[in-house]
Amino acid sequence: MMEVEERLKGLSRVDSPWVAKLLGHVLENGGKRIRPAITLLSGKLYHHNPDSLVAIATAVEVLHTATLVHDDAVDSSLVRRGKPTVSLIWGEAPAVLLGDYLFASAAHIAASIGNMRVTCLFAQTIMTMSFGELGERFSAYNWEQSREQYYQRIRSKTASLFSAAAELGAILSDAPEEAVEALRSYGYNLGMAFQIVDDVLDFIGDEEEMGKPVGSDLLHGTLTLPAILLLEHRPEDNPIRRISKGRENHADVQLAIDMILDSPIIDECYGIVATFRARACQSLEKLPPSPYSRSLFDLAQYVVKRRR
Amino acid sequence: MMEVEERLKGLSRVDSPWVAKLLGHVLENGGKRIRPAITLLSGKLYHHNPDSLVAIATAVEVLHTATLVHDDAVDSSLVRRGKPTVSLIWGEAPAVLLGDYLFASAAHIAASIGNMRVTCLFAQTIMTMSFGELGERFSAYNWEQSREQYYQRIRSKTASLFSAAAELGAILSDAPEEAVEALRSYGYNLGMAFQIVDDVLDFIGDEEEMGKPVGSDLLHGTLTLPAILLLEHRPEDNPIRRISKGRENHADVQLAIDMILDSPIIDECYGIVATFRARACQSLEKLPPSPYSRSLFDLAQYVVKRRR
Repeated sequence: MMEVEERLKGLSRVDSPWVAKLLGHVLENGGKRIRPAITLLSGKLYHHNPDSLVAIATAVEVLHTATLVHDDAVDSSLVRRGKPTVSLIWGEAPAVLLGDYLFASAAHIAASIGNMRVTCLFAQTIMTMSFGELGERFSAYNWEQSREQYYQRIRSKTASLFSAAAELGAILSDAPEEAVEALRSYGYNLGMAFQIVDDVLDFIGDEEEMGKPVGSDLLHGTLTLPAILLLEHRPEDNPIRRISKGRENHADVQLAIDMILDSPIIDECYGIVATFRARACQSLEKLPPSPYSRSLFDLAQYVVKRRR
Repeated sequence: MMEVEERLKGLSRVDSPWVAKLLGHVLENGGKRIRPAITLLSGKLYHHNPDSLVAIATAVEVLHTATLVHDDAVDSSLVRRGKPTVSLIWGEAPAVLLGDYLFASAAHIAASIGNMRVTCLFAQTIMTMSFGELGERFSAYNWEQSREQYYQRIRSKTASLFSAAAELGAILSDAPEEAVEALRSYGYNLGMAFQIVDDVLDFIGDEEEMGKPVGSDLLHGTLTLPAILLLEHRPEDNPIRRISKGRENHADVQLAIDMILDSPIIDECYGIVATFRARACQSLEKLPPSPYSRSLFDLAQYVVKRRR
């Protein structure tokens, strides 16, 4: 992970002080680095080449950072991990173009490794993620979405990268196909658990710890699991149905939050998280015992318990 | 080119009617398709595989489209080729995410061809272009830039893709290294000529034919060759120096346009264009005579004479 951090720092050394400043701002941001950790651990299970593995782990984190920069730009978010966003400090245009540069840098690192399967999976993952993000935009303020549609969305926008993070490590280490499949399944299920926790924290999290206000998803018209469950529990007279674009929604969002906290919904959500986590850990059982699979197991624990 | 059009159309066949609509809007847009034409002609000079060549030509046009979509989003442009922009119809967030999807699709097509050098050059080109675009943003409203800085900027943002378009075709056809170099040089010089013509048309073009208002560059704070020459000719009391962010600049922009039209500056610009075009055509002389190199020659003629 220290080598990944070094490589991330190295990306800011470019021939433009302005661009260097922006890159430093977003790449040295105290992120949790969960995705590159998954890549490194997955790769270390087999015959890995350390340089390639560090490179692809770096590419995975750079790709993740690119999506955050664009998310913040299009949502006009002010704060990310307690720091002002690029779009707040430098404006939206630089944020969009910086994100493009990061996407391209990630793809370039991936391509430079010289493994066709890695390069294709990497590009495919960016497609899946942006397709998922687009789908989320077009379903904004549509409160009639099913759980299945929600799962489909978070599969594209989040689980696809977790899954790729694990699979890329496995591919680069010439893992047997069953192990590649097991690690892909681990990543996918962990990604689903991760995103549901994220969506729950948006309702119950500590604003200071998270570095962003609670209720953001509903305010942006994004329907997540806790809200879907509230709509299932209370199909009539539900404040969520009153939330709509261009309207002052804060009171209804607060009411929805209160109703969710006053119900067993959060426990239900964590029950679903536990199911995804259990599936992730089951996948690990197909791997040879090693300190690395043990760490992947612990990582699944952390993802569920995290508070930011 | 018809096969490229078919493949571009095929990209809109996705599992979401919304996303399909956006893709159709930007990919079937009556673009000039200059870049994929360069790729096809460059590739046909040698032992090309038709499928790979059509694929990479498609990827080049998709990449170009991605940059247009993001440019329009960050500039809040209303019209592109006489059609309303994605950001105008569907909003800025979908435009940014659609651009991301297009970048990823282009990289994925390039990666799927299975040629390492192609994949790396492609990713490198996206990096160079977005780096150039970022540089342009940070130099906005800075009227102290030299011609060299201007050339550096258009080299990154435009000539790099023209150069890659030619080089990618050459690489995929196993052209000898001297031919790859000659085609790269052709693309680079043609791209420089193309962008200078673009920048000139922003001052002298027909608004209806171009599908956008004249003077847009100065209004956005972008310093281009005609304006640089005006600053050289009239270092004192120049209306361009009064143009600044957040101010009502229309009168000064109009005055600068009038001064440029009332001077030999446009002829000077076309003189520089002719030099780049001549260099592009000189590079073609290093190639074996063929109808394809003849077409590349004609294309250089067209790029200089075009009015939109």
